[in-house]
Amino acid sequence: MYKICIKNIINGLFKNQNITIRGWVKTRRDSKLGISFLSINDGSCIDNLQVVIKNNISNYNEILKLTTGCSVQISGLVIKSLKEKQNYEMQAKSVLIIGLVDNPRNYPISAKSHSLEYLRQVSHLRIRTNIISAVTRIRHEVFTAVHNFMNKNNFIWVTTPIITSLDTEGYSTMFSVSANTKKFFSKKSFLTVSGQLNIESYACALSKVYTFGPVFRAEKSNTSRHLAEFWMVEPEIAFANLQDIILLAENMLKYIFKHVLNNRMKDIEFCVKYNNNKNLINRLGNFINNGFIHISYNEAIGILKKYKNKFNKQIVWGCDFSLEHENYLTNEYFKNIVAITNYPKSIKAFYMRVNDDNKTVAAMDIIAQDVGEVIGGSQREDRLNKLDLCLKEKNLSIKNYWWYRDLRKYGTVPHSGFGIGLERLILYITGMHNIRDVIPFPRSMYDINF
Amino acid sequence: MYKICIKNIINGLFKNQNITIRGWVKTRRDSKLGISFLSINDGSCIDNLQVVIKNNISNYNEILKLTTGCSVQISGLVIKSLKEKQNYEMQAKSVLIIGLVDNPRNYPISAKSHSLEYLRQVSHLRIRTNIISAVTRIRHEVFTAVHNFMNKNNFIWVTTPIITSLDTEGYSTMFSVSANTKKFFSKKSFLTVSGQLNIESYACALSKVYTFGPVFRAEKSNTSRHLAEFWMVEPEIAFANLQDIILLAENMLKYIFKHVLNNRMKDIEFCVKYNNNKNLINRLGNFINNGFIHISYNEAIGILKKYKNKFNKQIVWGCDFSLEHENYLTNEYFKNIVAITNYPKSIKAFYMRVNDDNKTVAAMDIIAQDVGEVIGGSQREDRLNKLDLCLKEKNLSIKNYWWYRDLRKYGTVPHSGFGIGLERLILYITGMHNIRDVIPFPRSMYDINF
Repeated sequence: MYKICIKNIINGLFKNQNITIRGWVKTRRDSKLGISFLSINDGSCIDNLQVVIKNNISNYNEILKLTTGCSVQISGLVIKSLKEKQNYEMQAKSVLIIGLVDNPRNYPISAKSHSLEYLRQVSHLRIRTNIISAVTRIRHEVFTAVHNFMNKNNFIWVTTPIITSLDTEGYSTMFSVSANTKKFFSKKSFLTVSGQLNIESYACALSKVYTFGPVFRAEKSNTSRHLAEFWMVEPEIAFANLQDIILLAENMLKYIFKHVLNNRMKDIEFCVKYNNNKNLINRLGNFINNGFIHISYNEAIGILKKYKNKFNKQIVWGCDFSLEHENYLTNEYFKNIVAITNYPKSIKAFYMRVNDDNKTVAAMDIIAQDVGEVIGGSQREDRLNKLDLCLKEKNLSIKNYWWYRDLRKYGTVPHSGFGIGLERLILYITGMHNIRDVIPFPRSMYDINF
Repeated sequence: MYKICIKNIINGLFKNQNITIRGWVKTRRDSKLGISFLSINDGSCIDNLQVVIKNNISNYNEILKLTTGCSVQISGLVIKSLKEKQNYEMQAKSVLIIGLVDNPRNYPISAKSHSLEYLRQVSHLRIRTNIISAVTRIRHEVFTAVHNFMNKNNFIWVTTPIITSLDTEGYSTMFSVSANTKKFFSKKSFLTVSGQLNIESYACALSKVYTFGPVFRAEKSNTSRHLAEFWMVEPEIAFANLQDIILLAENMLKYIFKHVLNNRMKDIEFCVKYNNNKNLINRLGNFINNGFIHISYNEAIGILKKYKNKFNKQIVWGCDFSLEHENYLTNEYFKNIVAITNYPKSIKAFYMRVNDDNKTVAAMDIIAQDVGEVIGGSQREDRLNKLDLCLKEKNLSIKNYWWYRDLRKYGTVPHSGFGIGLERLILYITGMHNIRDVIPFPRSMYDINF
């Protein structure tokens, strides 16, 4: 089914065949010799198909009215193009005009170039531009690669609820959920910030699981790297320690990068041009070959202290890193993605496994050039007495976590997991600058078109 | 990575090899000859691995304390079993006890059988039972098959927002979303009931797209077939009419059924036994071979009128079908899944394309034995003037749908799509009776454990 698309034509699947294509006009050019050239796009790839229309077709007059954005159905012969750039083109035999553009001068996505800020205001139409469609196809490949990788490695996909009474991180700002019916739910309910706590219970029976879905933060972070609604994949593995999941994260990123380069190179190349970032493909290739830089939090502190004059925020042991620190480590010092391990207990969540020094936890943050934290993960505290201590230290109610404690009471196992912020990862892969441009309908503070 | 699991052992990948497995004790049996037998499960499949432990291992005394639910790590030799039923077993060389069960008599998931009602109260532990783990693995395969099918057919996965100001169906009971920060969003916001309207805008540029994620209904429907939070896949195709998407839906269901039967037959067989439903596999096979029964709404009315004495609710042209009608058509009359098309305009949503009779719309509902509606879809109204009429007829504000109308103003195309309620589909495949048992953490009225 559905084999006929411009991507497949460009790939040569229909050479010298008469077929019918459907799509939208990108541009129209008329020669003085009574020949018109239409560039047609159907979204299957970044390339347009050039269609050559001679003035002897019956509705040639109508063709001359076609403008950017009109929808058409064209039957004709696919031939090898004489020009080098376009490998294949179509000689039209008939053109059916399906939908015109009402008042072309006011068409919001005219052929001229538009700023990304402007395009955010027409989020229902911006997918008609090259850049947003390229990013959307890359996003599709990233999402697909995640599932493929998990499947190859025998992980079971477990969906975790969006509506929850849990605050996974213990300190997040959450959205509240309510129904018209009073007490629809028996408890106060919120939008989830992470599926981790839920999925731990499934890891403690199925061994290798992951959750994949949207998560929510109601924080007042109106930056180019924050969304109120974003997508995460969170693998969780029983009988695994911190080193195991760092290796898993590394293999997963390598797999995703390879998959995108193999399947959407032309879209990536368009992003390189659009963002004027020639390093984009190199840094993906470099990671595929070399993987992470591995350092401990202590080592990171040591490096940053040496270069402390470069930063606004002071570096002391126990502090959390801000973007300037992260960017220094990734962009300047290592020129690569960096995995930082063993953070101070005081700045991390209650569920992370306390190291023998009793000061640090078996946590990792993976930070990437320009975008900062892409992955956060940890080995989970599997010892009931230590977990209870941590809950107390963080002023969390032991009673609320009764079920989470059950997992430690009944056949507890060491287990570990992490979450990848997928929009951040797509920023990294595409070189886009604003996270609102790598998700179809962004939700961030003040930001909700419809 | 992660090759060693009981599924692969049972499949013969480790014959005569010394390996280390990790999992949980299902049962322990001790023979008088000083040999103990452990059944170990790691969640990778329904089968347990039998481990034979002789009393000459150093910690044999500890082995004798193992109870259901304890976690262990066992190294030993995988050999072909002499008994027929278990193909492979392990001769233990060392057993490391990782986590005991605290107070085994109170262990909520003891070796005896538990009712599904009881298990819902321990939703963090019920995955440790055979039935819930079988259903969860089948669910995983259904979800995976959806993505595989979409990919094979060149669909682009487009995520649509959970937080929205839209009411897609025009009459749904929606959950409200609020933040602590006043006016976090510039509009009143809700949890989405469907991604369709959003994804239409992407179909009108990328041609073939789908959204896949959780959707929400705040309806007071406290039945065994309704959830407040459930998962839908919604393909949307440009240049496609109702017949095209009925064909797509048929191929998709066939693909999913085949995938599940090929990959999780043992789990399906367990469901057959558990639900005492011998017809389960037959009806999947029957559908794979024969596809849908196709009838129009008018034909359905004709059939039901003939058998009107069987129903509580009267049958008149213009009525919506209730479960008793649907079950009669699927269970009794056709004994198959039925696709019903061309419903009265008055009982369907504003966005469906009006047929030439001006009384019916190009809609389809696909209903399955026992579970009722599994798929709902339609050709969308692509003509601006007809769309405006429908909005008026349904008392919806034309102003609110400004952006949706833009899709018809600028290069409109015929397009169609549908949504599959994935939990309903899993009910059908597994023969389970309550939808709360086919989703990891059910959310329905009054229902939110944590």
